[in-house]
Amino acid sequence: MSKGLPKREENYSEWYNQIIKKSNIAEISPVRGCMILKPYGYAIWENTKSILDKMFKDTGHENAYFPIFIPKSYFSKEAAHVEGFAKECAIVTHYRLRNQKNGKGVEVDPDSKLEEELIVRPTSETIIWDSYKRWIQSYKDLPLLINQWANVVRWEMRTRMFLRTTEILWQEGHTAHATKQEAIEETEKMLEVYANFLENYMAVPVIKGIKTENEKFAGAERTYTLETLTLDKRALQACTSHFLGTNFAKAFDVKFANKEGKLEYVWGTSWGCTTRFIGSMIMTHSDDNGLVLPPKLAPIKVVLIPIFKKEEEKQAILDRLIKIKDTLKAKGISVKLDDREYVRPGWKFSEYELKGVPIRLTLGPRDLEKNTIEIFRRDACSKKFVEIDKLNELIPNLLDEIQNNLYNKALKFRDNNIREVDSYDDFKKTLKKERGYILAHWDGTKETELKIKEETKATIRCIPNPENIENNIGNGKCIYSNKPSKGKVLFAEAY
Amino acid sequence: MSKGLPKREENYSEWYNQIIKKSNIAEISPVRGCMILKPYGYAIWENTKSILDKMFKDTGHENAYFPIFIPKSYFSKEAAHVEGFAKECAIVTHYRLRNQKNGKGVEVDPDSKLEEELIVRPTSETIIWDSYKRWIQSYKDLPLLINQWANVVRWEMRTRMFLRTTEILWQEGHTAHATKQEAIEETEKMLEVYANFLENYMAVPVIKGIKTENEKFAGAERTYTLETLTLDKRALQACTSHFLGTNFAKAFDVKFANKEGKLEYVWGTSWGCTTRFIGSMIMTHSDDNGLVLPPKLAPIKVVLIPIFKKEEEKQAILDRLIKIKDTLKAKGISVKLDDREYVRPGWKFSEYELKGVPIRLTLGPRDLEKNTIEIFRRDACSKKFVEIDKLNELIPNLLDEIQNNLYNKALKFRDNNIREVDSYDDFKKTLKKERGYILAHWDGTKETELKIKEETKATIRCIPNPENIENNIGNGKCIYSNKPSKGKVLFAEAY
Repeated sequence: MSKGLPKREENYSEWYNQIIKKSNIAEISPVRGCMILKPYGYAIWENTKSILDKMFKDTGHENAYFPIFIPKSYFSKEAAHVEGFAKECAIVTHYRLRNQKNGKGVEVDPDSKLEEELIVRPTSETIIWDSYKRWIQSYKDLPLLINQWANVVRWEMRTRMFLRTTEILWQEGHTAHATKQEAIEETEKMLEVYANFLENYMAVPVIKGIKTENEKFAGAERTYTLETLTLDKRALQACTSHFLGTNFAKAFDVKFANKEGKLEYVWGTSWGCTTRFIGSMIMTHSDDNGLVLPPKLAPIKVVLIPIFKKEEEKQAILDRLIKIKDTLKAKGISVKLDDREYVRPGWKFSEYELKGVPIRLTLGPRDLEKNTIEIFRRDACSKKFVEIDKLNELIPNLLDEIQNNLYNKALKFRDNNIREVDSYDDFKKTLKKERGYILAHWDGTKETELKIKEETKATIRCIPNPENIENNIGNGKCIYSNKPSKGKVLFAEAY
Repeated sequence: MSKGLPKREENYSEWYNQIIKKSNIAEISPVRGCMILKPYGYAIWENTKSILDKMFKDTGHENAYFPIFIPKSYFSKEAAHVEGFAKECAIVTHYRLRNQKNGKGVEVDPDSKLEEELIVRPTSETIIWDSYKRWIQSYKDLPLLINQWANVVRWEMRTRMFLRTTEILWQEGHTAHATKQEAIEETEKMLEVYANFLENYMAVPVIKGIKTENEKFAGAERTYTLETLTLDKRALQACTSHFLGTNFAKAFDVKFANKEGKLEYVWGTSWGCTTRFIGSMIMTHSDDNGLVLPPKLAPIKVVLIPIFKKEEEKQAILDRLIKIKDTLKAKGISVKLDDREYVRPGWKFSEYELKGVPIRLTLGPRDLEKNTIEIFRRDACSKKFVEIDKLNELIPNLLDEIQNNLYNKALKFRDNNIREVDSYDDFKKTLKKERGYILAHWDGTKETELKIKEETKATIRCIPNPENIENNIGNGKCIYSNKPSKGKVLFAEAY
């Protein structure tokens, strides 16, 4: 198998697209901006979902499902939401097709125009808070901790697989609380859940912080974010968690009777993550040979490949590999034995390297004689021979080692790419030369934020230590305006 | 808690709606024909999905995900599909909202009209076979066994929760095979998977058969169906499995090179089931006190309710219940201890009866002294006292017993409501007096089928033994036309 991958250094964007295509995880669909998640890619999403779903349930959340359509008028109910939220969305205006008179196909029946257009949900705050008005009467109904696994649609102009697509698979948590304090704690707790997942399962290091007023979610009081760094040293916002204050409660008139029987507005949060997590993972670990999957997310953790020339060698080798497969499976490790005979071993090697399978075991006639097996680890692209009898112990440890190694490597890369600067000149030079994250003082105004973006393409990814700013720790001068700054913020060119 | 349920005999339709509403499994949404699956109902769907998903994977299928939108032109590619399939669907014509000039909300931006309208998928054969053309080149790529968990939209004029809604949560399997025989075997195998699930998990007896030419899926060669009977003695089609022949392969030009290198069209199947399964389950087991859930699908299998008057009794009772809860949980049984103090026990009894929780355990001060506990089974609405120490053994057995009892009761009811008639007069009388299923001879023509439907509302639910008809077993005369019939078919008034 000729990998035919472009080198990462030469054409990062094409390298990314080709990895996705050639590893068979996804492909571009004929529908503008939508991708098809192929079985291998969907299996990664299934692993992601099942781990996160358990985390959500362990923190007291329940799943529910709300309609895919939202009446147009709902979007106008929360002022900041309608103003700030992307208006690019899919709009359903008719509900019937009819046969064309020329018999050549179907056309929209003009008589089926809807009285009120329906929007394919870009996010579900409005329809969910409309329900919460019916569901919440008293403090006994709170907290209400709901999550939804769903698809949403945003009509993005420029799309990139996993990072920005028209249709997105995601989950959205929407919670309601009796107090501000509890809602803020929920927002922060869910950010921790995401950080735990990204760092300990996807092996992707994150920077926690809050968004500026300009970058926060339309309708939120405060948006928390996790920022990751890609191999081409751009920031990628992995996910966000929003403290909504009482904004949606007021827009949808959701009040509860407190213990004294007095009516109060409900405090809200929302938080979500998407298949972008997979994009972030790809952009953190992959190399010129293809995907590199962290063992905890890999649909196949170990692949077994037989090598034989003569027919009489075949059965003994396959028998031994089946035994190995069964013992590893019994340990709960997902193993694949690739015994296809119309594909040469070398081709298989390339294929599973492309697919990022963490460990490859190869068994040939001579190995069998010596009771050894060749073990290849995808993260280091290194191989050695080990005794077959030791595999049982060795494989689980090696999977852990690979998982840790990927995280540590990514962490080192990320940390090496956070730079502090004290002047706008240095800022621009560093950005041009090194890209990566830049910590710098900012005067806190939208004006400066937009000017810097306009002049350098860098945006404020987050305020990493908002408590420092609140407590007036780390004062300084804005690199752009020279005005007083309450603390450094994190800039980067972002995806 | 006043249940306030209408009696089933008096107003079946309202009884059904109120059960769904009051048991908190779902509610009508503000979006026409769409329902909201509340956490308790979604948990039933999660159980359904996880059991079925395992069955699909155990039979070699993989999950994938295709776009929610289908370009309008795709629907015209398979002639029968466009002709026969419901044209009532949600049509996306625009992709942008803009602020109204009067500042009062948003409106559709006329400049954002799409060149080709997109249809929110009512089913995905077209977009999936379009992909299969790229995915299938050789016999080595076959069989291709793909399933998708997704939402689909059909613009139904009359909707009923779980049975017929505008948006539907479902799964759709789409497989491709090298031979006709293999595709037919797949179609039948998946029907068996559904039957296994319905009978052994949902405790809903099914009748297997094939649909008439008139009732089959648009684009299929043959549609297999599972028919169930509701408590008001109507037929409810639970799900279908379609042998597609080479229809979609031809429409999308999907060929494979066989072992001799010759190009052949691929054989296809598709099969799906929806949240209607839950509707079928409700309409099979519920009673005037509410839902009755089969233990294997119940989100809560056992509920524990403490009874105490004095504060000093409380802790001892709760401690004992927590112990019981922990031992049952350790056995993998989902248990809920309802220790809410602002709700009286009698209210809780009603609530969990409404919710169909299979077993209720109630512990009061006197029970604690005697080391006994009251055990209530929802299926029989009967209670007795048992020794607490025996619960560990008793509960798993009782759950099995309830599961079996529900199935056997439903089976008896169903079997008592299949009647054979030999004349159209008897047919009409039986239908009027008894409703239920009627087995009768039919001449095999669409004309007769439609006439009977027009005159009696009864449709042919299925041909239960197509092999008899093929083999000319059971000849007779059509009850309507007196023309020769090759075998009896199953009629009923259907949902």
